[in-house]
Amino acid sequence: MCQPDRVSNSTSAPPVCVVGLGLIGGSVLRAADRAGRRTWGHDRSAASVDAARADGFDADADLAAVLQRASSESALIVIAVPAPAVTATLTAIALHAPNCSITDVVSVKAEIAAAVARQGLADRYVGGHPMAGKSASGWGVGSADLFRGAAWVVGTDDSADPGIWRQVAQLAFDCGSVVVPAESAEHDRAVARISHLPHLLAETLAVAGANGGPLALGLAAGSFRDGTRVAGSAPSLVQAMCEGNRDALLVALDEALEMLQDARTELSDRSSTATLVNAGHQARALYDNQETWEITGITPGQDGWIDDMRDAGRRGGRLHHL
Amino acid sequence: MCQPDRVSNSTSAPPVCVVGLGLIGGSVLRAADRAGRRTWGHDRSAASVDAARADGFDADADLAAVLQRASSESALIVIAVPAPAVTATLTAIALHAPNCSITDVVSVKAEIAAAVARQGLADRYVGGHPMAGKSASGWGVGSADLFRGAAWVVGTDDSADPGIWRQVAQLAFDCGSVVVPAESAEHDRAVARISHLPHLLAETLAVAGANGGPLALGLAAGSFRDGTRVAGSAPSLVQAMCEGNRDALLVALDEALEMLQDARTELSDRSSTATLVNAGHQARALYDNQETWEITGITPGQDGWIDDMRDAGRRGGRLHHL
Repeated sequence: MCQPDRVSNSTSAPPVCVVGLGLIGGSVLRAADRAGRRTWGHDRSAASVDAARADGFDADADLAAVLQRASSESALIVIAVPAPAVTATLTAIALHAPNCSITDVVSVKAEIAAAVARQGLADRYVGGHPMAGKSASGWGVGSADLFRGAAWVVGTDDSADPGIWRQVAQLAFDCGSVVVPAESAEHDRAVARISHLPHLLAETLAVAGANGGPLALGLAAGSFRDGTRVAGSAPSLVQAMCEGNRDALLVALDEALEMLQDARTELSDRSSTATLVNAGHQARALYDNQETWEITGITPGQDGWIDDMRDAGRRGGRLHHL
Repeated sequence: MCQPDRVSNSTSAPPVCVVGLGLIGGSVLRAADRAGRRTWGHDRSAASVDAARADGFDADADLAAVLQRASSESALIVIAVPAPAVTATLTAIALHAPNCSITDVVSVKAEIAAAVARQGLADRYVGGHPMAGKSASGWGVGSADLFRGAAWVVGTDDSADPGIWRQVAQLAFDCGSVVVPAESAEHDRAVARISHLPHLLAETLAVAGANGGPLALGLAAGSFRDGTRVAGSAPSLVQAMCEGNRDALLVALDEALEMLQDARTELSDRSSTATLVNAGHQARALYDNQETWEITGITPGQDGWIDDMRDAGRRGGRLHHL
């Protein structure tokens, strides 16, 4: 049967069981379904379950039943609940589906990997983080196209099982993404720099502007508007994200503090901002001109594959297929 | 003759002589001309003069001749040269047109006011700063519409002559702007917060991201892209802007450093970012929801008008006409 748009490239791809049908989980369910994967999902909210069913998807509010089905059908379980709910979800998985492959789509990785290990599920787990989102949330705003062209980090830790790693990478491919291999801790250090530090700087700039009163805010134009945009995000989400990545964020924040302190000294002592301004301009040019490249020739399970994958990810490599 | 789109509201508005025909000066020349004002301009670049003439404007590379004409026709002189060239321009004005009214469109005000005073021209000068621009520069990118709807700060210092203040405000109205009255030093403190600090934070974020290497830059999405956008500006322009407003920028930068240091302590000691994140969200909401209001009932020259104007500007007021 020829259905190129709906059939997974992986002939052995297992069904996909998504726990949590918000923006990200709901989009994974839709995208995996469109790729021809057998899918079902859980949400603890009856309204979300009803909405997913109304859109023609298989959803259920009974977590135990959903996980028991995952166990009997050897599904890949995708944890897509908010970070504070991950531990309870893992407890249920350990009870009802301890032999299933497990991944997640939460925005920090080391903390989740540790919670998985505490449940004795480490050998069944490979983490993930699709770099896509929206400011709105809930099933209704999800889309099968949310992950198209996005980078999807697949956790490449020492304990990674090559078969499960392949399953998680295949899910990313089926959702239209490219795979960036990275160790959990290394992922967390990277997103501290490019996702969590930006939020703290935006909050700071917003306060500094507002401290200037209506005169300052009334004169604010593009640089202030763009620099404070993400300060409009819900504080609870920003806090959860930043606090869940505390150690890596502290490192990035200390770097920023040192740069700003040095700039302060240079401006005060020599009336110059040359060092920071030139370094910043060069750095932004690096970002604008970055080139990604396709990782080829590394097979999960081969000798040294974990180190090779991590090294390739560090150098900007991305997998387009396996 | 009925030409509502081309005739100035001010029946006594003097001709406008623009010195410097780059993006801002060239746009002032075009906008004042469209409002029905008699206009001419100077640029030291023959190419800019030719380009302005080709577009039908009266332009000349002979600064002495242009200023002598301003003197004989009692024009309002608009200084629109880059900050480092202001002193030389003032020297020429003192020589050739010492009795003309003078304003400027440079992005810092106290430094310019001091340079004006050093030339003995303080009683002929009222500064200005239209809050509009583009990243590109030169006559060719100017537009009569550049200032439409923008806030145009009119310097409201103790020495301000009410007649010249009116002339400068009328030029802003003729260019389609609303007038925000502010003392020079107060203007500089405001723009340090909403224009210069954003640049330093953007440069810092760009470097912190690039320090994460290709992995971090490859995962960067909206928050990093928006937060570093102005790090793409030409370093020489960013430096000139920030260094020309050194003292006010140091105050804003120290505030930012203190907030970030406090956030670092809270995150390290209590694994929380609540204080900064909540304050930043509230501040951004203030920006999003700010309301401006029209200043009425203050007449330049009346008793206490300078204090009244400054106070209204501080509270978000704007003049729509006089």
